[in-house]
Amino acid sequence: MDLTTQIPPADIRPGILRLDDSRIREVAHYGMKLGGVVPLWFGEPDEPTPAFICEAAAEALRQGHTFYTESAGVPELRAALAEYLTPLCGRTISPERIVITASGMNAIQIVMQSLVDAGTNVVTTSPLWPNCSETVRIMGGEVRPVLLSMGNDGWQLDIERLMDACNGNTRALFINSPNNPTGWVMPRDQQQALLDFAREKGIWIIADEVYDRMVFEGKRAPSFLDIASEDDPVLALNSFSKSWSMTGWRMGWITAPLGMIPTLLKMNEFNTASASTFAQHAGVVAVKQGEPFIARSVARYKQGRDLVYDRLSQHPRVRIVQPKGAFYHFFAVDGMTDSLDFAKRLVAEHRVGLAPGSAFGPGGEGHLRLCFANSPEILNHCLDRIETMLG
Amino acid sequence: MDLTTQIPPADIRPGILRLDDSRIREVAHYGMKLGGVVPLWFGEPDEPTPAFICEAAAEALRQGHTFYTESAGVPELRAALAEYLTPLCGRTISPERIVITASGMNAIQIVMQSLVDAGTNVVTTSPLWPNCSETVRIMGGEVRPVLLSMGNDGWQLDIERLMDACNGNTRALFINSPNNPTGWVMPRDQQQALLDFAREKGIWIIADEVYDRMVFEGKRAPSFLDIASEDDPVLALNSFSKSWSMTGWRMGWITAPLGMIPTLLKMNEFNTASASTFAQHAGVVAVKQGEPFIARSVARYKQGRDLVYDRLSQHPRVRIVQPKGAFYHFFAVDGMTDSLDFAKRLVAEHRVGLAPGSAFGPGGEGHLRLCFANSPEILNHCLDRIETMLG
Repeated sequence: MDLTTQIPPADIRPGILRLDDSRIREVAHYGMKLGGVVPLWFGEPDEPTPAFICEAAAEALRQGHTFYTESAGVPELRAALAEYLTPLCGRTISPERIVITASGMNAIQIVMQSLVDAGTNVVTTSPLWPNCSETVRIMGGEVRPVLLSMGNDGWQLDIERLMDACNGNTRALFINSPNNPTGWVMPRDQQQALLDFAREKGIWIIADEVYDRMVFEGKRAPSFLDIASEDDPVLALNSFSKSWSMTGWRMGWITAPLGMIPTLLKMNEFNTASASTFAQHAGVVAVKQGEPFIARSVARYKQGRDLVYDRLSQHPRVRIVQPKGAFYHFFAVDGMTDSLDFAKRLVAEHRVGLAPGSAFGPGGEGHLRLCFANSPEILNHCLDRIETMLG
Repeated sequence: MDLTTQIPPADIRPGILRLDDSRIREVAHYGMKLGGVVPLWFGEPDEPTPAFICEAAAEALRQGHTFYTESAGVPELRAALAEYLTPLCGRTISPERIVITASGMNAIQIVMQSLVDAGTNVVTTSPLWPNCSETVRIMGGEVRPVLLSMGNDGWQLDIERLMDACNGNTRALFINSPNNPTGWVMPRDQQQALLDFAREKGIWIIADEVYDRMVFEGKRAPSFLDIASEDDPVLALNSFSKSWSMTGWRMGWITAPLGMIPTLLKMNEFNTASASTFAQHAGVVAVKQGEPFIARSVARYKQGRDLVYDRLSQHPRVRIVQPKGAFYHFFAVDGMTDSLDFAKRLVAEHRVGLAPGSAFGPGGEGHLRLCFANSPEILNHCLDRIETMLG
């Protein structure tokens, strides 16, 4: 059944009808119908959640943790996250500053609802995971993308251009670092300059740090939480999805200044009430016992990253740089002007699923995104097909 | 730490700052600090989720159902719900019309985001669970409450007044039946009249039917889905929370006309991406094997309903009618002009937690809400205390 030809029986907001469908989903839905496709299109680890976390959820269910919980989240999880963050940040993060959300996605949604309305704007880097921009548009706000550029030393941001894009109607700077799709990581000096700017102008920094542990040097990417005081206009968003391979659990958190907490509690209540109660109890175990798993995952992803780089960097049509974080290669293909069409043909003719660069907004066209959180066998198989397609 | 005195470091939307805090939460937070309180303030069954549903979740985790799933939800769950709804509705409901959401609350949020913006309004009955109205206000819309009245035969709606409250800017009629907090159930003839009106005017009916199985005559309350075709402007919202005692799981669903599905998929993607994957697999088991549990629960709640009615209807200060659905008594107390103050004193002096009527908007003041989904022992204990307080 082709639903797109169906007409709704009453009015939908024009601004909602104009929202882009995800082009990642467009390729994926197309490919799923074909069958036998190796999917590297989503941002998802290839392994299921580790057994010790699953077992903790089963135990929480057996103990009857199936009731509503506080809007802020289960106290044990807020405390565990505060303990987890404090040494990573090198400064005390108190549990009162942490609100558990029903996914990192919902953390973005809640924050945008709180800050954005018609006549205001959010400045961000581009290319970017499209859902971030769409949440701004749902609230009637404007997205102001500032392009990253791909140099030989990796993706770069001209921070002056980011600041110049702000005006009196700017409510927030949305910074996703490590970045989906480029793997760009904002360096500490840029974070400090941007924090100074945000303080001076009274603009929020929304720091989407869901890939913070997926870095190939050091234990974690630089975080705005490392340099922000508890009174600074920084909202740091994170998720259980990437660090602990818990995508299907739908759980995230926001670390916020104390003055923002009452608003976030209200918005959590009016969005999902809270994240799943027993999932939060399993989250405690993930946070407290998950370090060996994270270390092993990052080592695997690094292997995948290097494998893809070593092969694609040899191809005359491909321009590729090593990402510093996240688990994607976002590479340019010479002569490819329609990445959506290319990605669909790659699926149809070669049964390999990549995300088209055009899905990621300005600066994305001409690129393809490949999730390298996969085994060498699968990656080599896909690269064989991609190379055939590239000619 | 009193967070309400903290000042946010940058601007929050004025419309968000004006949103009411939940007064139910206000009493509950006050009471939780005291300790030893018997809580009848939330709308929650007293028993944990049945073991067979918990075991299904544990098994889904063991099988590795921990990855992202489709925005529409796990296909097996959409199929199971279609099979569940079809005999209840007496007409075929196709799986294509069903979208799984991360709670009934989030279903409301997604629907309001899709329909409401500044300059539009939503007409609803009042008193009403406050979260419904707040989602309209988050989107900048106006809530137009039409009062239910409490007669000797129970709560009543003058449907002409509901229609008169609509104007050219009305996007939706929000009908929560069985109703939280009053237990009012909209009869079939009113549903038919309202559906005819909505068709003619091109206004959506948002039917919040989360208590549809919690009725004390018949198998289910009348549903708009029983009379609406798949092209009618009816969005029926439901939840796993009440029927299967799964409040802490955060899972619901929307049954919509086909023309609305593409919009709901987008909004699901941009709100939470989907509900928890393994929870959805457990949902299949709940829907398919849950009937004996529902029957047993309703029998228990009916016992609780009658017990509370029999005692409170004897009290000279109390005016109470038997609710037809949901699991609350919403009774009037003669001479009580500040239900929030009364509820706080009841907690402080007698350690019994009720929700203040003023939490439920216009028509709510002067009442208290008591959730009778509890054992006779607990209800009798609480009624002893309440009667003492009433004098």
